[in-house]
Amino acid sequence: MEQKVVHQTALQKVLEQFNYLDEKITHYSSILGLADWDLKVMAPKKGRSVFAKATGTLRTEIFQLSVSKEMGDLLETLSTDELHSQLDEVTKAKVREYKEYYQKSKAIPADLFKEYSILTAQANDAWEEAREYNDFDRYLPFLEKIIDFKRRFAEIYGYEEHPYDALLDEFEPGLTVKKLDPIFAKLRESSVDLLNRIRESGQPTKAELFDQSFDIEKQKAFNRYILPLIGFDMEAGRLDETVHPFAQTVNIGDVRLTTRYLEKNVRSALFGTIHEAGHGIYEQHINPEYEETVLQSGASFGIHESQSRFLENMVGRSREFWQFFFPKLKEHFPVQLDEVSVEEFYRAVNTVQPSMIRVEADELTYNLHIMLRYDIEKSLIGGEIEAKDLPQIWNQKMQDYLGITPLTDTEGVLQDVHWSFGGIGYFPSYSLGNLYAAQILRKIQKDIPEFYQHIENGRFEKIQAWLKENIHQYGKLYTPNELIVKVTGEELNADYLIEYLEKKYTKVYGL
Amino acid sequence: MEQKVVHQTALQKVLEQFNYLDEKITHYSSILGLADWDLKVMAPKKGRSVFAKATGTLRTEIFQLSVSKEMGDLLETLSTDELHSQLDEVTKAKVREYKEYYQKSKAIPADLFKEYSILTAQANDAWEEAREYNDFDRYLPFLEKIIDFKRRFAEIYGYEEHPYDALLDEFEPGLTVKKLDPIFAKLRESSVDLLNRIRESGQPTKAELFDQSFDIEKQKAFNRYILPLIGFDMEAGRLDETVHPFAQTVNIGDVRLTTRYLEKNVRSALFGTIHEAGHGIYEQHINPEYEETVLQSGASFGIHESQSRFLENMVGRSREFWQFFFPKLKEHFPVQLDEVSVEEFYRAVNTVQPSMIRVEADELTYNLHIMLRYDIEKSLIGGEIEAKDLPQIWNQKMQDYLGITPLTDTEGVLQDVHWSFGGIGYFPSYSLGNLYAAQILRKIQKDIPEFYQHIENGRFEKIQAWLKENIHQYGKLYTPNELIVKVTGEELNADYLIEYLEKKYTKVYGL
Repeated sequence: MEQKVVHQTALQKVLEQFNYLDEKITHYSSILGLADWDLKVMAPKKGRSVFAKATGTLRTEIFQLSVSKEMGDLLETLSTDELHSQLDEVTKAKVREYKEYYQKSKAIPADLFKEYSILTAQANDAWEEAREYNDFDRYLPFLEKIIDFKRRFAEIYGYEEHPYDALLDEFEPGLTVKKLDPIFAKLRESSVDLLNRIRESGQPTKAELFDQSFDIEKQKAFNRYILPLIGFDMEAGRLDETVHPFAQTVNIGDVRLTTRYLEKNVRSALFGTIHEAGHGIYEQHINPEYEETVLQSGASFGIHESQSRFLENMVGRSREFWQFFFPKLKEHFPVQLDEVSVEEFYRAVNTVQPSMIRVEADELTYNLHIMLRYDIEKSLIGGEIEAKDLPQIWNQKMQDYLGITPLTDTEGVLQDVHWSFGGIGYFPSYSLGNLYAAQILRKIQKDIPEFYQHIENGRFEKIQAWLKENIHQYGKLYTPNELIVKVTGEELNADYLIEYLEKKYTKVYGL
Repeated sequence: MEQKVVHQTALQKVLEQFNYLDEKITHYSSILGLADWDLKVMAPKKGRSVFAKATGTLRTEIFQLSVSKEMGDLLETLSTDELHSQLDEVTKAKVREYKEYYQKSKAIPADLFKEYSILTAQANDAWEEAREYNDFDRYLPFLEKIIDFKRRFAEIYGYEEHPYDALLDEFEPGLTVKKLDPIFAKLRESSVDLLNRIRESGQPTKAELFDQSFDIEKQKAFNRYILPLIGFDMEAGRLDETVHPFAQTVNIGDVRLTTRYLEKNVRSALFGTIHEAGHGIYEQHINPEYEETVLQSGASFGIHESQSRFLENMVGRSREFWQFFFPKLKEHFPVQLDEVSVEEFYRAVNTVQPSMIRVEADELTYNLHIMLRYDIEKSLIGGEIEAKDLPQIWNQKMQDYLGITPLTDTEGVLQDVHWSFGGIGYFPSYSLGNLYAAQILRKIQKDIPEFYQHIENGRFEKIQAWLKENIHQYGKLYTPNELIVKVTGEELNADYLIEYLEKKYTKVYGL
């Protein structure tokens, strides 16, 4: 009896230390998230470089706390058979998260990490400039250094077969080239086949209706109108503007979205905002008990993208969505949409058309954009190609995958922000997101057979409640694989997306 | 020879450690500054409480680094006669700054500091709510705790005569009740006398011209027009909106101002923006070599206020300023200012009228608002009065000092943000600022005899260059006393302000 009490007290003390460290790391990460957001959205030009250095210092501190001897000792203690079995589910998940990071990263020297942090914080400006001036060379020195760092990190993290596996794992724990290659091969084959059939015998859509000017102030008004309706809590978040839209969480009550308004492309902000709202609503719905802990985030990048792509495509590009929202959109743009019917508009937003820009691609060709990036990253990290050759390689691959060639690097290799912040291994998450989303769609329609009627009536409460209940609330409690099995009863399966695309485009294009 | 080399190497190593720690603390402070700004300007409602906790964690870390054993050892080493004499001027100033903080604060337990940090970060919301609903009781529990903390800190910091001295010293190093009482007494006497003479025989101004609506969008346009003209670099800063205007530095290239637009009070944003610009330009002009060090800030709160009050009053409320800007203002508000002459406008912006709100007070009664707060803070910290009695005490003192009584607490004791962030001891800085500003005005007019001609021509380059050269560039290199002696050749002297006010209002009111 006496001994048991002593043990419990010892465990309690370890847990106290662990939770204290977790809270500190999470608080710092939260402030760092804010700073990263600010650097992209608010910070004036002349202060950004020093600002980036300051964030590098804080990022390095988070890194050092996460790989500290204190953390190592705590994780070791909490992983002993005797203690681990006494932990509750939440603590086990926290230990899992920190342990994975600790084991991968403990061999990285703090100085190296700091140098990398400052580099990636400063590279964003170089990327933006290169993009603005269509001048890849301004970005190249940063990109080369980032790739060099990533190759070194891959070696330090370790991998079994391909060095790129070490980076994929950062975004989707457990994902490898070996697992992903066949999934992508299958998806590519069916996508190219469907694309060809659409090209050969599809009935054209009225996509030209988008070749008009849409006043930006009115676009803003419409975006602000739909955001709360589809479930984003405006008292627990913001919407701002950036070149590259993103979502950034400060805490569960403070989730910040950005979007991009283009007068000549009304779809950009429209679907960009819905996409980011999918990310944002996920974070707003996380169990408040996980706030100020490492669990206050999504299960993985792939699961996160499943929520943004689900809202953007399965919901936002559905006929029912526009049955409800098109009349409202027409109120904002009576001249532009005067002669357009809902059905025409629905078909137009689902136009399949190989195009240069990933974020504006249709649901079918989107995954081909991802596979192109996946191939390039794999070869870059594998050392088969070098950064300086990327513009040429990019354009060649665009021709191979989509049959078109960018005229400028701005609409080619410079279009994505990801590499500038070191997000190599991130892109596959988008297609994983599409795959997960289709699998989740199947399940939600079983549980809520009148799923599309709710959307048609502009009622998102029940759908969002289901997503919250089944996915969002858990934060990082489960691994992505555990979560998808828990929700849908099976592991990731490419068939659902293939079937979804087949069915959707057969109807849209009258195949 | 050998020994000398060894010594130099040892010193070099100490300096490296010291500079590294300084950079870390400064980087953290810079991010914390950003977070404080964000919490007031950007953060959505539901996230603020947790956000405040996160900033409390970072603020506590800065505190702990500043009072750490490592810091103590470094300061001790660098303060030995042998080493200190070898230090350059910049390092000596850094050592002075950290030493002062270390000696005051090292006895404060980290837990106590953290609790205080979170309290002050959260109190802002309570203050804003109390102000909105004219409900002092919502603020009272926070205020009581803050005062309690401040009383305890005063005891820990230590003082020779009055516990309030310990707090004054935080804002104006070396300032005491004993020094300030006679200065304020003299200023009060002359101000009350001048006020009486204006009341008795002053020719009325056309202040009623401000009792009109001024479209907020046009106010914004005018503010954005003058800000760069008077010297604020918009590429190294921002202008946003808050209930209580303030300036916040992230770094020398990122200085953020806020202002408040009121349709029924065009003066509020106008002079508020010029005031904050004075703070902001000061920070933008600091020697870039001090960036990322503790010296990258103003010499003291009093010196800082001298720069904001100088720009707001000596420049912004001068006849010459409006000779240049009034035609531009008239372009924005042709209807409101149709029948108004420059001279009338100039006299109207210098109307002396006892009023409720400090930030909107004229130059003469302003200092009486400060003395009221000084008296209250002195008695609060001295334990002679309690927070719960403040509304009544405030109103009584308003009657004594200004002959008017607030009708609500919102326009009374709740009007200022300062106590909510723990800024007890801050208010006297404003009057010190006025005193310093008048003393500086005398000197700048000696050096630039055509001072007011430059303003009349809308040319601020030479004036700003003088301020940069003589004051701004130095950051915290000198103590406030060293700086004012260096600039003007003598210590703080109340006579210049008294003389300035006498001369100005004699003309404005034709006394």
